[in-house]
Amino acid sequence: MEQKQQDKLISVTAKLGLKNFLKEGIKMAANFSYNTRDIKFALKEWLPTEEIFSYDKYNGYYSKQDLDMMVDQVYKMSSDLIAPTNDDGEKSPVYFDNGKVYLPASFKKLYRYIQENGWGAANIDEAAEGTIPYTVYLPLMEIMSAANPAFMAYIGLTNGAAGLIQSYGSEQVKKIFLPPLMDGSWAGTMCLTEPTAGSDVGDILAKAYPTDDPGIYRIKGSKIFITGGDGDHADNFVHLFLARIDGAKPGVKGISLFVVPKYWVNEDGTLEPNDVETTGVEHKMGLKGSATAALAFGDNNSCRGWLLGSYDAENKEGQGMAQMFQMMNEERVNTGMLALSVTANAYWNAAAYTGERVQGRLMTNPGAGRTQIINHEDVKRMLLLNKATTEACRAILLKTAYYIDVEHHDPNPDRRKWAGGMAQCLTPVAKAYTSDEAWSLIGESIQAYGGYGYCEEYPVAQAARDVKIYSIWEGTNYIQSMDLLGRKWVMGKGAVFAGLLKEIDYFIKKNKDTTVGFEKEFINLGRALQSYLAIQKLMAGYMADKQFGLIPTFSRRILTATGQLVGAYYLLDQALVADKQMKELAEEHYDYNFYRGKVASARYFLRNVVPNVWLVEELVADGDNTVIDVPPEAFQY
Amino acid sequence: MEQKQQDKLISVTAKLGLKNFLKEGIKMAANFSYNTRDIKFALKEWLPTEEIFSYDKYNGYYSKQDLDMMVDQVYKMSSDLIAPTNDDGEKSPVYFDNGKVYLPASFKKLYRYIQENGWGAANIDEAAEGTIPYTVYLPLMEIMSAANPAFMAYIGLTNGAAGLIQSYGSEQVKKIFLPPLMDGSWAGTMCLTEPTAGSDVGDILAKAYPTDDPGIYRIKGSKIFITGGDGDHADNFVHLFLARIDGAKPGVKGISLFVVPKYWVNEDGTLEPNDVETTGVEHKMGLKGSATAALAFGDNNSCRGWLLGSYDAENKEGQGMAQMFQMMNEERVNTGMLALSVTANAYWNAAAYTGERVQGRLMTNPGAGRTQIINHEDVKRMLLLNKATTEACRAILLKTAYYIDVEHHDPNPDRRKWAGGMAQCLTPVAKAYTSDEAWSLIGESIQAYGGYGYCEEYPVAQAARDVKIYSIWEGTNYIQSMDLLGRKWVMGKGAVFAGLLKEIDYFIKKNKDTTVGFEKEFINLGRALQSYLAIQKLMAGYMADKQFGLIPTFSRRILTATGQLVGAYYLLDQALVADKQMKELAEEHYDYNFYRGKVASARYFLRNVVPNVWLVEELVADGDNTVIDVPPEAFQY
Repeated sequence: MEQKQQDKLISVTAKLGLKNFLKEGIKMAANFSYNTRDIKFALKEWLPTEEIFSYDKYNGYYSKQDLDMMVDQVYKMSSDLIAPTNDDGEKSPVYFDNGKVYLPASFKKLYRYIQENGWGAANIDEAAEGTIPYTVYLPLMEIMSAANPAFMAYIGLTNGAAGLIQSYGSEQVKKIFLPPLMDGSWAGTMCLTEPTAGSDVGDILAKAYPTDDPGIYRIKGSKIFITGGDGDHADNFVHLFLARIDGAKPGVKGISLFVVPKYWVNEDGTLEPNDVETTGVEHKMGLKGSATAALAFGDNNSCRGWLLGSYDAENKEGQGMAQMFQMMNEERVNTGMLALSVTANAYWNAAAYTGERVQGRLMTNPGAGRTQIINHEDVKRMLLLNKATTEACRAILLKTAYYIDVEHHDPNPDRRKWAGGMAQCLTPVAKAYTSDEAWSLIGESIQAYGGYGYCEEYPVAQAARDVKIYSIWEGTNYIQSMDLLGRKWVMGKGAVFAGLLKEIDYFIKKNKDTTVGFEKEFINLGRALQSYLAIQKLMAGYMADKQFGLIPTFSRRILTATGQLVGAYYLLDQALVADKQMKELAEEHYDYNFYRGKVASARYFLRNVVPNVWLVEELVADGDNTVIDVPPEAFQY
Repeated sequence: MEQKQQDKLISVTAKLGLKNFLKEGIKMAANFSYNTRDIKFALKEWLPTEEIFSYDKYNGYYSKQDLDMMVDQVYKMSSDLIAPTNDDGEKSPVYFDNGKVYLPASFKKLYRYIQENGWGAANIDEAAEGTIPYTVYLPLMEIMSAANPAFMAYIGLTNGAAGLIQSYGSEQVKKIFLPPLMDGSWAGTMCLTEPTAGSDVGDILAKAYPTDDPGIYRIKGSKIFITGGDGDHADNFVHLFLARIDGAKPGVKGISLFVVPKYWVNEDGTLEPNDVETTGVEHKMGLKGSATAALAFGDNNSCRGWLLGSYDAENKEGQGMAQMFQMMNEERVNTGMLALSVTANAYWNAAAYTGERVQGRLMTNPGAGRTQIINHEDVKRMLLLNKATTEACRAILLKTAYYIDVEHHDPNPDRRKWAGGMAQCLTPVAKAYTSDEAWSLIGESIQAYGGYGYCEEYPVAQAARDVKIYSIWEGTNYIQSMDLLGRKWVMGKGAVFAGLLKEIDYFIKKNKDTTVGFEKEFINLGRALQSYLAIQKLMAGYMADKQFGLIPTFSRRILTATGQLVGAYYLLDQALVADKQMKELAEEHYDYNFYRGKVASARYFLRNVVPNVWLVEELVADGDNTVIDVPPEAFQY
């Protein structure tokens, strides 16, 4: 690792003086209970991270040996600086008063700190050296998010906005907006949703009118659900704003993307109001420290924005959707990461609590007296379901990030294309499978706590309240499931997705007869793969029969089956690594139980979760169309 | 219906003057969206309610013709008087200050109103005429609970306490406590849980010491999670208190039950403090208007209580657990009802919202333009899953209530015994299946709303926060599952539960060949029944092999399968009634879509939910013992 990077990392420790300042006056529930061992395992022992480090962009800055230190430093920062702000978000939620939005006090200082120290938008700076590849940055964000998911939205959105400006902005636009976005003076957002257009982004009403200044448009429209849309933590807000240029085509093709700052930046660098008004913030179930704003642009006809890219006046088509999707795809992966961070943190809290709480006697050994409830089978089952599923989700997320890095940086164009396809196939699964499972998994973590799980003094109730949005934002999980079936399955005439399935088949064939102790697990993975192939065939048959309604009827269940199949493959792949380690280590070795746990995760998942894949096959084969036939009026009862 | 009862019912309308008073100053989200058609169907067209009405206890007071009016009156009361208080609980939660507990203002008046008008504890008065049988009272409570579940806890607990005193109190105790409990001046609680003993009630530390006054004991102990444990809505709190008499056996056999009032009642009727101190209230995820109190009894050694029943000094055994279980069994059914009320209310809110919200185009007909989202297949799927499952749960709950009425009132002792057995078999399912499904069902209702579902201005976020406790209190759902497998399966050497399964077999044999249009549904029910029998056999085998750990490993999944099997049987039974009606009614008939919806519920449930039963069989047959083998240390990762 270069000295410069070491300095960057070590700065975290140096600046821990901030810690006491942030903690001042904040009474906090102990809720950051993250463990980084699985992240380190995935990066060091499972993924070919050295391949990523070897790319020109990263070469020489990092090696696998640096990973422990990077993870540990971010863990320390998360524990000491970020986690203490979590309660502040709960106890002093974002509020709106007289046109202004106020954040919890500790968030403001933390936002500046994270950005200034290069853990936020600066990490995507293409011109900078020593930025951290996504494969590594994603799990680092996971750790930070677990410490305060409401806060991390401000970082994530600013990263996304800066990334879009970097990709599509003119030199002038980049010069104006990138430096303050990267150093934490300003913040970024993405403005898609309107009161009457959410999932249906092609129906937005926001408009843009050309002005005499080339590249500058007059902007008009209302946006809602804008995460980080306003606050007192930044001097300016840079909105990436979807609108239709006057006269452009209807639907998604006519949409363009604009950079619309809250304060217009004059040539001399001074700021003046840009007719962007905040009209309120949502009172949400969770993520109470995150400002979800409603914004009115151009109510006084004096709002201006910079067009990103170009507008095709002849065909009346904009580039907005394609541009936004560059950001959106990565935000979808990030959303899965956020859901994972909240879920895994709840799991580790439940594991810690149940390891302390004494209640009941073991059915298998009642004479031994009362025991910690972690020894009860049903508690272990809830924890193991959580452990196995969060590890499966983490594996899917990290693989997706890995493919994205390969896509962006591999010298071989064929390999870039292949990796890009794999990333696209996995993205809806990484987003939706993780955020779907999160709800029931956290439900079980609450259950493991018993009555205290229902009390806000303990952290799992908040986890449930925080996590529910991730199945909705960045495209609802239904949208993800239709993306999977309607786009990803059919990419390259189906060859891309078939490649993913072939990889599973190859893995089974390669290992099933040479690996001792996982016979049943390989049988189940093989059966799940065959079921999945059958599901694809059945759905193709329904399409051919024009039974189109069965696609959306089954799409979410099929997405779940996809997550279970792919997650099972990755978990079993990891278990083979862990099994080898177990054989080399003594039972007393400090790492032995980690590897044993990895094997248990795979085993539990393969034998208790994966069988759902063939249940889904059976349901798809039945093709029940009650959902399609039932009239909406029946739901009045 | 007798004039007296009509008066009682009509009084609701007369007293609606209270409505404006209660609504004063309360800004409320429209969230009571209940529909009573399925309740009326179950009571009038499915259950033999006339059999209950014919019992001596009820004879002459009600007939089936009165049911519509009863339900409608309670609906009106719930809508006009109870629902407006719901937001008050959210916006002015219960709080604790200087040793006292304060309820939302509107709750206090409402509590008195409900009790005074006979909708609460007075309805269990055995001496009174014209009380409403449980089969009818349970769904009436369901409607009331949907309007404000936090409030209904005060009513339910007072009912339970009054019921226990009625059953086991001496004449003196009854005279002191029953009248003020029934007229709403006082409130009741049940005090089981202690800081170190929750599920494990046999380990309670609370003690009772004899005094010179026969039947009166000195009481000492700390209790937590006491629902309705204190407040400013009642002049006295009557705690049904579990404690061990000094010298009694350890474990559950040594426990006795005491009536411990907050204020001791002197012979002249005056009250004086009884050394019962409230030490705090929990800050809960939901049910914020419900006081969950921590209470200290006898810290100054001057707390007294009345023993209920007797103490066997020779064997050192108390009657407390048996007595408490009388109350507990019904409270478990009531808990299922509460979970149902919150879930169904969220479902109907989601149905109403999705019927208004316009977004997207239909995949099957994109040219038709934008549509209400209730027309999208995935939204319909979420709603239908909710509709079918809540109807299955309602059917299980009502059947249980019906069996309880038969058990209590049928003149034939054999039939009473049979019905009691059936009620016992169904009780853990009614409690746990309903409260387990509630979490994922409300998750889908939030999902159906999209982003607004995450905002507290809409009612579904609160529904999720309110509902989670029901899977925990009154015995966690794991306790319920072990009750099912360990007690209910083996009652009468297995004959009782086998009777329930034989009834399903009989239903299939009787109808499968004579009923047109439900062929696949009967096949699935039959297959589920065979799977269930196989599950029982497999579990018996594990017991015989002394693989005891597999019982708790699978018990909750088996409980779910039980709910799915029994729920499917009831839904299909109801669908046959509905199908007959459909054939007799024109499609234009106002009730046609209701019956069509009943058939759709059964069909969806049988073909999309029930197949899980054979998946559970497969998992049980695999008998994976990873859960048992994994060491607790593995959960540190």
